Amino acid sequence: MSDKKKYTNIGRSVPKLDAVEKATGKAVYPQDTNLPGMLYGKILWSKHPHAEILKVDTTEAQKLPGVKAVITAKDMPPTKLGFAQDNPPLKGDKVRSLRDEVAAVAAVDEDTAEKALEMIKVKYKPLPPVFDPEEAMKEGAPQIHAEAKGNRNKLHYAFEYGDVDAARAASDVVVKHRFKLPWVKHCCLAPYSCVARWDESGKLTMYSPTQIPFLYQRDLANILQMPSSKIRVIQPTIGGAFGSKLDLYPNEVICAVLAKKAGQPVLLTYTREEEFKCTPSRQPVIADIEMGAKKDGTLTFRDVFFILDNGAYTSWGATIPYVLMNSVTSLYKCQNIRFDTAIIYTNNMYSGAMRGYGNPQGTFVVERMMDILAEKLGLDALELRLKNCNQPNEVTPQGFKVTTCGLRECLETVAQRLDWKNKRNKGQKETGTLRRGVGLASYIHVGGGARVYRSDGCGAIVKVDDFGHVTLITGSTEIGTGTETVLAQITAEELGVHAEDVTVVNDDSAIKPWDVGIHASRTTFIAGNAAREAAAKVKAEILKTASELLEEPENKLEINDRKVYPKKNPEKTLEIGKVIRKAHFRQHGQAFMAEAFYDPPTEMEDEDYRGNISVTYGFGTQGAEVEVDTETGQVRVLKMVIANDVGRAINPMLLEAQLEGGLSMGVGYALLEKLVVEKGEVLNPSFLDYKMPTVKDMPPVEIVLIETDDPGGPYGAKGIAESGTIPTAAAIGNAVANALGLHLFELPMQPEVVLKAVKAKLAKRD
Amino acid sequence: MSDKKKYTNIGRSVPKLDAVEKATGKAVYPQDTNLPGMLYGKILWSKHPHAEILKVDTTEAQKLPGVKAVITAKDMPPTKLGFAQDNPPLKGDKVRSLRDEVAAVAAVDEDTAEKALEMIKVKYKPLPPVFDPEEAMKEGAPQIHAEAKGNRNKLHYAFEYGDVDAARAASDVVVKHRFKLPWVKHCCLAPYSCVARWDESGKLTMYSPTQIPFLYQRDLANILQMPSSKIRVIQPTIGGAFGSKLDLYPNEVICAVLAKKAGQPVLLTYTREEEFKCTPSRQPVIADIEMGAKKDGTLTFRDVFFILDNGAYTSWGATIPYVLMNSVTSLYKCQNIRFDTAIIYTNNMYSGAMRGYGNPQGTFVVERMMDILAEKLGLDALELRLKNCNQPNEVTPQGFKVTTCGLRECLETVAQRLDWKNKRNKGQKETGTLRRGVGLASYIHVGGGARVYRSDGCGAIVKVDDFGHVTLITGSTEIGTGTETVLAQITAEELGVHAEDVTVVNDDSAIKPWDVGIHASRTTFIAGNAAREAAAKVKAEILKTASELLEEPENKLEINDRKVYPKKNPEKTLEIGKVIRKAHFRQHGQAFMAEAFYDPPTEMEDEDYRGNISVTYGFGTQGAEVEVDTETGQVRVLKMVIANDVGRAINPMLLEAQLEGGLSMGVGYALLEKLVVEKGEVLNPSFLDYKMPTVKDMPPVEIVLIETDDPGGPYGAKGIAESGTIPTAAAIGNAVANALGLHLFELPMQPEVVLKAVKAKLAKRD
Repeated sequence: MSDKKKYTNIGRSVPKLDAVEKATGKAVYPQDTNLPGMLYGKILWSKHPHAEILKVDTTEAQKLPGVKAVITAKDMPPTKLGFAQDNPPLKGDKVRSLRDEVAAVAAVDEDTAEKALEMIKVKYKPLPPVFDPEEAMKEGAPQIHAEAKGNRNKLHYAFEYGDVDAARAASDVVVKHRFKLPWVKHCCLAPYSCVARWDESGKLTMYSPTQIPFLYQRDLANILQMPSSKIRVIQPTIGGAFGSKLDLYPNEVICAVLAKKAGQPVLLTYTREEEFKCTPSRQPVIADIEMGAKKDGTLTFRDVFFILDNGAYTSWGATIPYVLMNSVTSLYKCQNIRFDTAIIYTNNMYSGAMRGYGNPQGTFVVERMMDILAEKLGLDALELRLKNCNQPNEVTPQGFKVTTCGLRECLETVAQRLDWKNKRNKGQKETGTLRRGVGLASYIHVGGGARVYRSDGCGAIVKVDDFGHVTLITGSTEIGTGTETVLAQITAEELGVHAEDVTVVNDDSAIKPWDVGIHASRTTFIAGNAAREAAAKVKAEILKTASELLEEPENKLEINDRKVYPKKNPEKTLEIGKVIRKAHFRQHGQAFMAEAFYDPPTEMEDEDYRGNISVTYGFGTQGAEVEVDTETGQVRVLKMVIANDVGRAINPMLLEAQLEGGLSMGVGYALLEKLVVEKGEVLNPSFLDYKMPTVKDMPPVEIVLIETDDPGGPYGAKGIAESGTIPTAAAIGNAVANALGLHLFELPMQPEVVLKAVKAKLAKRD
Repeated sequence: MSDKKKYTNIGRSVPKLDAVEKATGKAVYPQDTNLPGMLYGKILWSKHPHAEILKVDTTEAQKLPGVKAVITAKDMPPTKLGFAQDNPPLKGDKVRSLRDEVAAVAAVDEDTAEKALEMIKVKYKPLPPVFDPEEAMKEGAPQIHAEAKGNRNKLHYAFEYGDVDAARAASDVVVKHRFKLPWVKHCCLAPYSCVARWDESGKLTMYSPTQIPFLYQRDLANILQMPSSKIRVIQPTIGGAFGSKLDLYPNEVICAVLAKKAGQPVLLTYTREEEFKCTPSRQPVIADIEMGAKKDGTLTFRDVFFILDNGAYTSWGATIPYVLMNSVTSLYKCQNIRFDTAIIYTNNMYSGAMRGYGNPQGTFVVERMMDILAEKLGLDALELRLKNCNQPNEVTPQGFKVTTCGLRECLETVAQRLDWKNKRNKGQKETGTLRRGVGLASYIHVGGGARVYRSDGCGAIVKVDDFGHVTLITGSTEIGTGTETVLAQITAEELGVHAEDVTVVNDDSAIKPWDVGIHASRTTFIAGNAAREAAAKVKAEILKTASELLEEPENKLEINDRKVYPKKNPEKTLEIGKVIRKAHFRQHGQAFMAEAFYDPPTEMEDEDYRGNISVTYGFGTQGAEVEVDTETGQVRVLKMVIANDVGRAINPMLLEAQLEGGLSMGVGYALLEKLVVEKGEVLNPSFLDYKMPTVKDMPPVEIVLIETDDPGGPYGAKGIAESGTIPTAAAIGNAVANALGLHLFELPMQPEVVLKAVKAKLAKRD
């Protein structure tokens, strides 16, 4: 953009401020905590997917030397965890899945704790389990929660807009299919770890990787039945989150109760196997989707029904329809929508939040169906999308007020970079066993915060010292996405210094102002606006002093590159530190600091799921060129193209890294990743058996950043953290279909899935 | 005070917030720091009090396994430390005292470091030393610093007011004496310890017990020739300071340079012996003082000359005349003053700041002379003081504008509690070897900050969370005086919550706003006003929201005991957290935080030492009843009385603890404590040989807090942290004189000193 050149920090690829500490192993993660007298905690997991607990005998375990605390449900407050309040941190009456917590131990070392677990005797009375949500819905299926009749979670998401039945009748073409999407994991490189420490005054300090320090503080207080103000949350370096730390889970409560009972700090760290088995996964779905269109390609209706395997308890997984819905109602223009869900308890493990929330699932089914619909219409898949493309200033059926929208540019850019015209639909004509194809898919996602809580705000405190060095105390959290660096750039830009001059403080609930948490791609936008606002207040003070010193009105002054100067006389510079010292070290001296709280001008959705929850929306398109081996079923991605409406690239390098990182998750979702679960048991709980993409699996990627300069964003930026993951599987799925001339309806598209489909097609041909 | 009852926190003896952590050994001091890869540093001290350094050979030491860095002057920047910039952190050309730093080592453990020190070969060429400042002043004395002719420090303090010579001529009575006061130590329970850590980006983090984090940051940056903004100062729990950490000393610079060279963090902790020998002491003085008066007791003039043994280098000790002067010019009304000094380099160790700065020395000589003058006048010593007593709204010769002044009340209270009328001048008449006497002494000291730097300010940031829990981020430092607790009380009072609801953050230069440092009894007053101002801003926001909710104008609302309510309808309460949540969780929600910077309306003294450096002044009187054994020379203090003008007692318990703590230092100064120094060597560097008062040496103490409700102070408070120490030695000295009917002119009044005087008197009698 032309006005880019006037920025010193914005648009600059500043290396992550924490990069060296992390790369050199100096970063301190929760598992590195070492407090005086610290003990090690371990959890005893259920032996049955569904059973009554008749007796838990811990007497032997308690006698083991080195054991400082053994707890069971009896040691727990009666409160329960989770959005549906259905999850006791330790299970007393019955277990409902193999990852149920039955007891826990704190001991002087991990081996002793392990040994003690083996010495706890639990007597179960097994109950018939149910693992398939459609089975669980049936009359007479085993009841998992007494209060949940038919195993239906009381959560229910339904949306209606326009007249779907009339639109169906008026459609020239209608398509209908069922899709099945699997459990996948966040694969955080640091297994979940937390530390609890109580002081003599009954205050609890938690060292936690939580993404939501202030909601966490409130929730933990509620479940421990103590005042929130007595809980301090320290967030050490977080080794990956991706949504997996967006809820308060039993392990943190167990850690706190162990520490209380032992009277010593307790560190509770998951093994990699526990990380796979016991942390929440991405929510699996079964989707029945029907879509229609006019001959000319105008979309007429979408009618979808999602069945969610809730697992045994309710974390955020069950709530993904809230976002899933967005892609169904708002990706491409469609005026008649029906959306419904069945959220069913089973004896499987439960799911949680994961990058994109429900959007990757929703986008996959919608974008796969767009291709199928185009095929049926005899239209080009790109043309169909362009015809129904979202536009600036559009209002979607859910009431999302689109401001800037670069989707058309994204679609065209990707098509051009993919050589769409020449490569689309050429795959089948090739000879030999290798088939090539191209496909693309787009997304819409919140890009300016997401008002899912009553407050979507974030606070910031900025102080500038006598030497022009800046501290930003932000409510937001760094989970590896580089927000620290981006916020430093925004603050520095506003103050006319360099990002390197900014120290970001963001790890202590006692010090930092409130923030709702790091989720929904909101931090650059929300925390960025807060930081900018606080910095602007300080800047005004600096200019006021400078105008006295330079004898120029404030509005005639420029502040840049650590200096203040008259716009029309840039040689007459004053170093910022000097200006500050001047005002600081005089009679009635002042200090240069200010605070701000930014809560975006958005609204919560009403009970009908209508409301403009975000200041702006992000759009993007991904394109894939693939080569499928029809003999092995192997899919090779030859090339990916990403064109993303980012509003404004604050830090192009970090932005591209975010998109690439997201893409790698999308590639895994499309082709490799799947938690193999049988009878509620995870059969591949390791990086050997669970295939996340490595560098060798990553295709070459072209990234094009489309800058639409959003008026609401800090320096025009939109949030994009999740977006890299959202359309990837759909784009690859469409490319595979284009290569093979057949459609797959499940993920991941592992060789056996592809082969089965190819064989079936050949069989049909004979 | 009548309005006391309206306070919830002010006037309440809240236990120190950090008491339990300290009492249970959980507090983390610098020496408890344990960073990955941390090394241990040791300093090689000079073997001669005065010598040229011909050669320093470290080759053997460097070869010793486990040694990671050995440094000499060559590794140091050319910059020098101290107020007179005369102290190189490591000495290259010559040594000037036995505590001179010649080299330093960092190794994997302390033993290895010690061993390495022994392997450093230093070749000296001894030079003639001089240890007596009066010798050092003489023609032909050894020159310690080439640039300091006649060993005179370029620092020179002289003050003149009125016409001393005319006043002397007009006096009815004139007295003149010489006093000698010794070196004494702070006796911090935690020996000096600091840790230096450099990160990959060239940023330095110091874990330091400094009392002046921001000046320290600036000074350390200057000497290391790097930007201040690259230095972060963390202040772990500080195990005693009393002024001893008010300057930047070589050990901290050496620690930083060792860490840089080793590429690993370094911990440098003094042994108790080093603590005694190598940290600065209270400044010793020789005082020649002449005072006159009219028959009626009206003081006519004071003419004083102080000789200061500067030691080999210049730290704050040499600057104590700046405060010493105050007692000479301003304690009791006297209109003709001459004050002069000679600050002389010797080959002794140098002195620094210590509780009261020069005031204990100045008050001792002035108050002892008041008694001698009264004797000569045939007036009662109390009457003489009352006649010349300081008063409210008086302006002293130095231009100190006294606002509130409770001195008269203090004098009368002490006299009454001592039973002055009956006990004064009765000692000599007793039979046997035991003589009893009473004496008293007063002080004047800054009580509302002290503008000794261009800024005397302190910043504060206050935030209140959704549950009414408060965080105060203050620039000030906690050195054990309880400021944390007092600031919590002030903040809580302003916000209408309880002190227990306040978390005080004060240990990180990157987080806390600027403060000049903890010295001059300024923290309760200055940091208190800053905290109160920030809290008041937040309170206004809370009331604004509450007035909407309660439908009452803000000025009709009261906020107290965690609730807001209409003044005329106190039952209609709203819990503060609820008010905050209401405003936080609504459209355009807000957060409740604010900052303030308080810089008092005072002026720096001009070059003639005139100026009102403090908003208000503290006054107090101490009385002593003693029993002297004329056979053993043993002085027993039977009782002490303290009456102190404290403005307002924020926390009576902590206030009394401060006064008692100060008193114990005064008792040591009067009777027990003395660093025995011969030929520049400290001969009693241990708690066995250096006698600080133990609980058995402490007399019973009666404390009376006089509340004058100072208009400038937070809730009327004045600073008093140093005052307990200031008049003690003078009061005891006057009581001993009263008991024996003879005068002692040196401290401490150890048995041999008393006996010598008694024998001399008896000899005279024969």
